[in-house]
Formats: sequence, C-alpha cells, structure tokens
Amino acid sequence: MKVGVLTGGGDCPGLNAVIRAVVRKGVQEYGYDFTGFRDGWRGPLEGDTVPLDIPAVRGILPRGGTVLGSSRTNPLKQRDGIRRIKDNLAALGVEALITIGGEDTLGVATRLADEYGVPCVGVPKTIDNDLSATDYTFGFDTAVGIATEAIDRLHTTAESHMRVLVVEVMGRHAGWIALHSGLAGGANVILIPEQRFDVEQVCSWVTSRFRASYAPIVVVAEGAMPRDGDMVLKDESLDSYGHVRLSGVGEWLAKQIEKRTGNEARTTVLGHVQRGGTPSAFDRWLATRFGLHAVDCVHDGDFGKMVALRGTDIVRVPIAEATARLKTVDPALYEEVGVFFG
Amino acid sequence: MKVGVLTGGGDCPGLNAVIRAVVRKGVQEYGYDFTGFRDGWRGPLEGDTVPLDIPAVRGILPRGGTVLGSSRTNPLKQRDGIRRIKDNLAALGVEALITIGGEDTLGVATRLADEYGVPCVGVPKTIDNDLSATDYTFGFDTAVGIATEAIDRLHTTAESHMRVLVVEVMGRHAGWIALHSGLAGGANVILIPEQRFDVEQVCSWVTSRFRASYAPIVVVAEGAMPRDGDMVLKDESLDSYGHVRLSGVGEWLAKQIEKRTGNEARTTVLGHVQRGGTPSAFDRWLATRFGLHAVDCVHDGDFGKMVALRGTDIVRVPIAEATARLKTVDPALYEEVGVFFG
Amino acid sequence: MKVGVLTGGGDCPGLNAVIRAVVRKGVQEYGYDFTGFRDGWRGPLEGDTVPLDIPAVRGILPRGGTVLGSSRTNPLKQRDGIRRIKDNLAALGVEALITIGGEDTLGVATRLADEYGVPCVGVPKTIDNDLSATDYTFGFDTAVGIATEAIDRLHTTAESHMRVLVVEVMGRHAGWIALHSGLAGGANVILIPEQRFDVEQVCSWVTSRFRASYAPIVVVAEGAMPRDGDMVLKDESLDSYGHVRLSGVGEWLAKQIEKRTGNEARTTVLGHVQRGGTPSAFDRWLATRFGLHAVDCVHDGDFGKMVALRGTDIVRVPIAEATARLKTVDPALYEEVGVFFG
Amino acid sequence: MKVGVLTGGGDCPGLNAVIRAVVRKGVQEYGYDFTGFRDGWRGPLEGDTVPLDIPAVRGILPRGGTVLGSSRTNPLKQRDGIRRIKDNLAALGVEALITIGGEDTLGVATRLADEYGVPCVGVPKTIDNDLSATDYTFGFDTAVGIATEAIDRLHTTAESHMRVLVVEVMGRHAGWIALHSGLAGGANVILIPEQRFDVEQVCSWVTSRFRASYAPIVVVAEGAMPRDGDMVLKDESLDSYGHVRLSGVGEWLAKQIEKRTGNEARTTVLGHVQRGGTPSAFDRWLATRFGLHAVDCVHDGDFGKMVALRGTDIVRVPIAEATARLKTVDPALYEEVGVFFG
Repeated sequence: MKVGVLTGGGDCPGLNAVIRAVVRKGVQEYGYDFTGFRDGWRGPLEGDTVPLDIPAVRGILPRGGTVLGSSRTNPLKQRDGIRRIKDNLAALGVEALITIGGEDTLGVATRLADEYGVPCVGVPKTIDNDLSATDYTFGFDTAVGIATEAIDRLHTTAESHMRVLVVEVMGRHAGWIALHSGLAGGANVILIPEQRFDVEQVCSWVTSRFRASYAPIVVVAEGAMPRDGDMVLKDESLDSYGHVRLSGVGEWLAKQIEKRTGNEARTTVLGHVQRGGTPSAFDRWLATRFGLHAVDCVHDGDFGKMVALRGTDIVRVPIAEATARLKTVDPALYEEVGVFFG
Repeated sequence: MKVGVLTGGGDCPGLNAVIRAVVRKGVQEYGYDFTGFRDGWRGPLEGDTVPLDIPAVRGILPRGGTVLGSSRTNPLKQRDGIRRIKDNLAALGVEALITIGGEDTLGVATRLADEYGVPCVGVPKTIDNDLSATDYTFGFDTAVGIATEAIDRLHTTAESHMRVLVVEVMGRHAGWIALHSGLAGGANVILIPEQRFDVEQVCSWVTSRFRASYAPIVVVAEGAMPRDGDMVLKDESLDSYGHVRLSGVGEWLAKQIEKRTGNEARTTVLGHVQRGGTPSAFDRWLATRFGLHAVDCVHDGDFGKMVALRGTDIVRVPIAEATARLKTVDPALYEEVGVFFG
Repeated sequence: MKVGVLTGGGDCPGLNAVIRAVVRKGVQEYGYDFTGFRDGWRGPLEGDTVPLDIPAVRGILPRGGTVLGSSRTNPLKQRDGIRRIKDNLAALGVEALITIGGEDTLGVATRLADEYGVPCVGVPKTIDNDLSATDYTFGFDTAVGIATEAIDRLHTTAESHMRVLVVEVMGRHAGWIALHSGLAGGANVILIPEQRFDVEQVCSWVTSRFRASYAPIVVVAEGAMPRDGDMVLKDESLDSYGHVRLSGVGEWLAKQIEKRTGNEARTTVLGHVQRGGTPSAFDRWLATRFGLHAVDCVHDGDFGKMVALRGTDIVRVPIAEATARLKTVDPALYEEVGVFFG
Repeated sequence: MKVGVLTGGGDCPGLNAVIRAVVRKGVQEYGYDFTGFRDGWRGPLEGDTVPLDIPAVRGILPRGGTVLGSSRTNPLKQRDGIRRIKDNLAALGVEALITIGGEDTLGVATRLADEYGVPCVGVPKTIDNDLSATDYTFGFDTAVGIATEAIDRLHTTAESHMRVLVVEVMGRHAGWIALHSGLAGGANVILIPEQRFDVEQVCSWVTSRFRASYAPIVVVAEGAMPRDGDMVLKDESLDSYGHVRLSGVGEWLAKQIEKRTGNEARTTVLGHVQRGGTPSAFDRWLATRFGLHAVDCVHDGDFGKMVALRGTDIVRVPIAEATARLKTVDPALYEEVGVFFG
C-alpha cells in the first residue's frame, strides 16, 4: 500500500516527529510505501513529491520545521483544485493520505474525502493550541517554553530599572500562549484576544504593581484588542505600519502606558522565535504518538478521522467535527489566572 | 482563618509555585493567614514554623526546591506522632492544613483527618509521575526535559564514535521518565522497571542499530531489572558498592553489553540533576493551578481531597483513593513505543 | 577598613558575581567591612546604604541584575554632587570605593579621586563590549548567547517559509553583539553601527541567498544606519514613534527589503531579553575574577585603577585611560566575517 | 589547488564550524577544491574520502560532532603509515592538508611535513583546553556551560536535602573544566588533577559548609587523585571496575565523605553529555575564526603552523612548539579560586 504524507500551514515544532513516527511504524509494522508531498497541498496539486523512507526520516526527530516543506496553498481556491489532486494521487498510486495541518489543511482533506472518496487521516497542528477536539496540539508547549524563558529574563531588568516591560506573544484568535507563558513567567498583566482589555485597568494594574514591588511585566497576545477598538486605528504610529504587523499591539500599548502612567515602557516582540527550533520533550512525545496513531488509522481503514489528545490517551475524532469550532480561553480560566494581576 | 502549609518528601520543581499560588489566592481572595511548617511533617511535629505571607512568596515561582524545606520525617513512625501534630496545630490556631507531597506525606494527612478530624487538603507531588489519580504530577515534565536534553547531546558522540551510550534516569518503581525522555530523545532501547529486560534482547537491539546507523543510545530507569535478577547480585563490581547506588543498573548493563557484543559502552548517570533547577513552563502552570484549587478546597470546606489533573481540568479526588495504587506504564504503551527500538 | 561598593548604569548579567567575589575575598582574606550603596551614585549622593556581608551575597552568583540596584544618576550633573558624595563617604567611614559600571560611572570615580582624593577602584561593565582597555566585559557573552539562540530558532522558520527574517540586537555605538551572534547564528547579513550600510547591497545579499538556499536571516545592531541617513528620518512609520525606539532600524529595514525585493520580511526585536537572566559560565568566571582582583587592588592600595582582561590574565589599567576610547569593530574583522554574507 | 581536511581524536563541539569556515572561504575567496577525509588519519591512510563543497557544509555550523567522522587511528603505529598517507595524498592530487585535532593528530601532521614535505596546517582541538599555545580551544566553553548548568540544578537539591553532591567532570590531565564550571556553579570544593587532594581537607570543607549554609557541592575532575594514591587502588569497589572508568574518582570520593563525615553523599557523572550537542556561541565564533585563518595559512603558503587564540586575535604558531607542553592549571590560579572553598 502506498500512503501520501503532507504538512500544511505555518511551521510548528514537532512536524518532523510526526513524519518520522508515521514512516517508522508504517514501514516496519505494516510494510507501507510512502510518498512525501512537497509544500503542503501544492505537492499533490502539482504532483511534486519527495522520497520518504526510513533513511529519509533518520535524525529529524529533534529538528524544528518540516522536511516536507509547507505552504498555505489552498486548492479550494484554485480551479479544479480538488479534482487535480485526486487525479495526481491516482496517477502516483497513492491510496491514502495523511495530512498534517491546521483548520485550512484539514478542511481540504474533508472535501477530498467527501467529494472524491480519497481516504484521508488528519493530524492536528496549530501552535496557538486553538483546536477544540484535542487537549493540546504539538508546538504549543515549545512556544510557551520560549516565551516563558524570555519573560524570566525580563524580570531581571524589571527589577533593576523602573520600566514597564511589554511582551507581545503569538495568538491571533486565542490567548493560550499568552495565558500559559504569562502565568508561568509570573507576568503582572495578561491580555488575550478573547476579552477586550480596558487600557485604564491595565494602567491601574501597572501602578499598583509598582507600589507593591518592582516594575511590571505585561504579556499581550498579538490579537488582543482594547475595549474601544477605534483607539488602535486612530493612533498614527500604528496606522503608518501600512499593513498590520506582529509588533502592533505591544508597541501601541507601551505608548499608552507611558502616556497615561508617566512610567517608561519598552516592548519585546518575540515573533517567529516562538515557532522555531527544537521541539520540547512534551511536543516530541505528543507529535510522535499522533504519528503512530495516524498510521494505525490508515491500517484500520478508519478514514475521515483526526487523531487527538484526551488526557493521556490518543483518540480518533471525525475531522469535520474537530475543526468546526475554535478553542478559545474559557472566561472562568482567565479569571482564575487573574488573581496574579496587578 | 489560619491555614498551615507543608511540603514533604524528595524535592521537585514546582513546589514553590504551589506555595505561591496557595498564599496569593488565600490572602487576596479569602483573607486567610498562613503558617508555613518547616521540613515536611517535622514542622508540625516540633512546632517549627516559618512566616508565610505575600512578601514571603515573591519571586519564588521560577525557583526549584521548596522555601519551606522538606524531609522524609514520618510521624507515623514516632510515638504519639499524629497526636503531637494535632496538639501543635491546635496550639498555633491552625484550622486547616494543605499538605504537598507524595504517597507517604499524603498518607499522614489521611490519618490526621481520620483520627483527629484535622481538615486536610492534599497536593500530589512525585517527580516519577507514578500517582494514579492524576494525569501528570508537576516536576515530571522538567525531569523529562533535562533527560531529553542530555540524550540529545549524547547523539553527537554516538555519531562520531562507535560507543554504546547508556543513560540511567530516575524511576525506581515506574518507568515514566525513561519512557518519555527515551522516546523524545530518540533512544534505541528503553528499559523500565515494569518489565524485566532480557540482556540478550538488549544486545541484539544494540547490534542491529550499529548495522542500520550509528552507535545506539540505551535509556534505563534506575529501577529496571534484568529478567534473571540474580545476575545483578552475582556481578562483583555491583556487589562491592556496599549499599545500592543510583549508578547501579546503568554501569552493570554497560559492562554486560561490552562483554557480550564486544562494543565499547559508556554510562551517564544523571542523578539529582533531573530534579533540580527551575521548573518548566508546563510544571509551573500545573503546580500553580494545583495551588489555586487546593486553597479553593479549603474555602469550600471540601477536606480529605487531593487536587488532580484530568485532561486540562483540575479536579478533586479523595486522598485515600488517590494514593492507593501506583501508576505504572501500561504494557500496551510500552509496546507502542517499542517500534523505535533497535 | 570599610569599603563601599556600588553598581551604576544599565543592568548586566554578572554584576552580582562581582559583588559576591569582592565581599567573599574582602571579608575572608582581608577582614574588611563593606557598605553597599543603593542605585549607583544615588546611594553615596543621598547616603542610601544596604548591609553587605557574606550572608547578603549568598546565592546571588547565578542571578541576573544587581542586588544593590542601579541607576543612571550622574552626580556631575548635580550641584555639589562630588563634594556631597565625599562628605557622605566620610560620614559613613568608607575609606575606599569599588565602582562597577560603564564609562559614565567610572568617569565619576575618576573625578572623585582627582578632586577629593577618594580612593577608588573600577570594575568595567558594558554589555556592548565597547570598552577599549579590556578584551571582554562580562554580560556580553550572555547577550551573544541569547541572540544566537534566537537566530538558531529563526532558521527553522526561514527554512519552511520564504520570508526574510530581520533580527535587531543591542549595540548603539558598537556592533559586537551583532557581529558575534550573527556569525555564531549563521546569519546571511550582519549590519553594525561602525559601517553605514547600503540598502541595495543588503537587498542583493537577500536575493542571492534566496537563490542559493532558503530564506535569509539579517542581523542588525540597533545603532546601524543606512548610508543615506536621511532615509530613516523621512520614513513616516519611523517618525511616528515620537521618540526613537529600540525597534527602529529593524522594522525600517524589513519594510525596505519588502519594497525593493518583493519578498515578505518580518522583524524580531529581542530588546531587554538580551540583558536579563542568569549569566553564562564565561561571564560568571570573568565577573568573579574581576571582583577578586578589584578587592586585591584595594588591599594593595593600588587606586585609580580598573581591572581588565588581557588574554586569560586579569590586569590593572588606569581608569582614566581605560574609558577614554570606545572599542569599535575593526574594519578588518568585519571584512573577515563578510565571507559569510549573501 | 586541492586541499584535504580531516578531524581526529575525540569529538568536540565546533569541529563542524571549522570545516564550514575552511570550505566557505577556501572556495569563495581562493577557488580551492576540497577533499574530506573520513575518520581522522584513517581517511588518508586508506584513501577514504568524502566530497566537501559548499552544499556539503550548509547547515552544519550549529551541529555538534563532525561531518567527516573521527577516530583515534594513529598512522605512526602502523607499518609505513606516514608513507602510505603521502602516497594516497599524491594519488588524489591533494596538495595541502588542514588537520583539526589534538596533540596526537597534530603530531602526525608534523611528521608528515618533516619527513615527506607534505604541506600541513593545524587547527587545535581539545575539549580539556590543555594546549599551551592558545588561550582557549573550542569545545571547552560548551563543556563548561553544560557542567555549570548541571551544578546550578544540583544547588536546588542541596538546599532541600542534607546530602553532599559530588559532580565528576571531564579532565584527565588538566582541571580547566572543573575549575571553570566549579567556580561558575558556585561549588564548595573543586579538585583538579594538577594538585593531589587530601581527603581529610575535603571532609573539613564539607563539614564547615554544612555549618555555614546548606549542603556542599564538590566538583572533581575525572583525573583528580587523592594525596595517598594507593587509597584508590586499595578500595575494592573501584578495583572491581576491571578497567578504569569515568565514574571512578567521584564514586570513590562520595563513599569516603560518607564514611568520614557521616553525611550522605551522591555522585553525578556527566560523562559524554559534556562533549555533545550544539556548540556555544563562543565556541562557534572561535572555531569559525580558526577555520578562516587556517585556510589563509594555506593561501599564504605558511605551512607547519597551527592557528591559536591570543587575547582576541588569531595568530599562527609552529605546530611542533604548540603541542610540546600540556597547559595545566597554574597553582596561583587554583589558589585564587580557593577563596570560595568550604
């Protein structure tokens, strides 16, 4: 049996661990042949493949990124995209497809299965941890670790100088990285996209922190927004970015804090640093187990499913359901963490 | 209300995060006073206390160890131990006790509650992750991360030289650290206490690995035992240790591999390095949430309970049940991981 | 004998290591008493002191920042500043002063010695490594390590996506951090304040790198400037920052690259992360030896001197000479490193 | 011109950085062709080569080990070894040889040059930092960093429990790693091969440390020996190791401390972990510059030389002189550090 593998969307530590596990178990236990597709859906769309056997996956476990390459190519936006993929898979003799990716990537897999009966198995991937069907996605723990280490370091400076330190972390729609790294790093304010923030409230936390101890650290998700959304757009410095940049809200907030509290404020934008480098042990464990179970799905003929983490178990859930809803931070959890603000 | 806090047993990254969370929420939200007891059960046994307020827990989140100190003092083994604790608590006006510890520490709490009606809440602590009522315990992720990093480094040497590298990790009764770090580190053999190993099988994995790639890395839990248990005792080099040492099985195995396969073998014993230093972000998150929920138990008057992780939720379980059974590695999971051996 | 100690200027990993070494050796070998001054020159200016004995320096070796606090208070800018310091030292019975700081801090020490005969010994401190009398200053190695780790991580993303990654690192007047971390991280372009850069040349390196391999990483010191200096000021997005920010040149350059090459570009501004956290082993070694030798200077009555590193030796140089000239990157060294550009 | 490159002896972080720098500059600036020899002197002895061009060195900068492989094959111990190498080089058209290695490897290069006029350039490599002609060798800083991090972690346990922690680090003939990591890690006793230690003195430091603070950390180089050398041999547990192992002196010392002071003691043997993994930024900088200057030597026709670090400069010294004397720890430096013992 010949099985295709592809990785789509933004890169994420742990992708290579999935690929390695799929190939090791598929070849050794089930005798499969594998075809790697290059750059996400672009691969099957254009018939662009890479050899994928045991030697090809040796040594990739600790490496970030993906040996298959990735892209955001969406075949649904191309004329006959889905049909062309089906034809290419048929021409290559690929009988099943393991797709590793986020909402968009897995959405294509669903369409491919529904419309052309191509047998697909999904492996969830989002560094933001915002997929509802699984407790965690790989890459998230690594990102949280990197952000936490940065916050740890900033405490030193906050202690020695009287400067508010704003750290902008990833998270456009969900505040998981901000929440976990902010809590783990002992931040004094954590702002997430799920709940619009009140700049005055932030400033009051900043001020009370200065009174109680040393300078505050404010962690803000890139997608966090002030309560009065117009404020951002009216601010000229932001407007001048032309198109929206990662550094947006952090810079804006630092200036607001300076203006309103009179304290100096500085911004650190971690950016891509959070999604690169070697995966944490947790992410390697999770990604490897996802890979092992995905290839088991193929072996069981259990298609249309996505592997997911529930507690310490790997389970299978329908892809379509899994990607239906964004997993955002529960207001109760945000409030639980709020005891450390100020 | 005055609440006592103590930490018992071996140290574990995250203890300070629990203490900080308990105090921050207890003082800020519930207006509690806290009394810290020094060195586990020795504190209440001898009335040895430390002040525990918000200034006392400032800055301790990222620090390993415990500001309260710890010990293995077991009041059950002392005459009138339990009664003396009760009397000291009464004399100090301590109305409830949060006990952070492993099986032994929590066992004393159960007795204290059962026999004298002292209201206790438990927080589980075992670096070995071998407590059955919770998905994970804090400290474990940190230990796995440290062991994985060591294994990563050893790959370099294994690649450049033709030496078998044996890494002995913690785990007397359960192989969780060996299993997780071995998988995450790409080890070629993983040996755990739950399943006696066959030295010949190990040697055959070693040999096949040499043929397929570069020198193998063997991860062995300190509590792992060969199938023929007498072998260890008959080995003179081990016998001469006098009393059993951490370095036992790793050294012994390296010699067996040398003798049987003719390949050079070297041992690394990570020892206490695995349980020291700053907790990982995951452990800080888990420990902090354990602390927040433990103090909620006190506030709810929900005593005799232990906080535990289930999926992403913190739940409450009866202490007595929680510590009844050791959580060992499921044979099915060990087999799942076995695809990477050899 | 009573000896005063102060730390001035921006914080820097290793300050605590110096303080600890001074106190340990001073007390144990020479029987000195120490007076710590709070917040740099503000301490002696206002007579603000902290106790400084062996218990006070226990455990501070691995901690970033400074237990004495720091500030940029410059007594030369205050009426009678120098005289007030002299009077306060006399009133406190402080007979010699160990000043740990950069150019400004040490400059005050020189004046104090010249004008009032106060015996001073200097310990150089600049995270930018731009002091000419010493091979290296402590803190620099830590900063380079942090920046290098960030660059390492960015390679993963550069490999998976087609995005230029610009990393802005510290260095207002000297490009040492950019040069060392850029070389160590395998950057494809390194821009330093010592040599104005040509945006077209940068874009041509970017383009050639894309052809040869994956996306390029551009490391730019915060003080680097394009050849046509007006370009920065004319750019509206930069102008709108109000006052100059750390994120200036990196953001500006990313936009220029996007505009001119058509490639997407993203910026990471490491900011204060580079100067916080635990010092590297190298910095602890250097800072400790600086401290030991500084207190030896006091014992030898060798005042007006600054300790410095020459090869593997700690030597003494006149403070005044030492701070006279900024140590910038030699053009020959920059050219040597240039073999890796593009 | 065709230039050969080989790496000999034990592996060391930074070897790949040297190789990459040699090839990048050699190809780009001087138009050289390169031939890689596999496994040290075994390569030229058996004519075993690997292609070595710019694509071959891409991405190897941050990787530990050596892409050329290494071995301790000594052609001086083989019949006609040197002549066979000369013949193979001639047959392959290799006109100059860059040899990266320690004393043994460079010794062969000297013989090759002296006896057959083969033009050789040396790059020094010893993780122990015991080569007299250079301030530092690459790999050393990485090893010190790893050992220091381990010691940092052990402080946590030392603080929480009453156990002496013995850490055995690399260093058979020179105590540089022990000295630097012991100082940087805040060890309470440091034992080096250069100075036989008195077990009673060690025990007295251990005891005084317990009185002053928490449990002591003892760092011991693997080559350190007690004053009465017979003690080791008479100890049965050590004798039974058969052949001497890395774990020797640490285990032995822990037992002596237990026996003599009555305190529990535990040993950690870091072993190969110290020489594996990614090189530190310092080592990448040093190794890269060594590589650049080595290929310059070839271009200048300056053979028989070894590159070396003096302060911040890379200089050239005669190979023969450079390897003549082992660089051991100066007694004065050991005494300087001794202020922290006990």
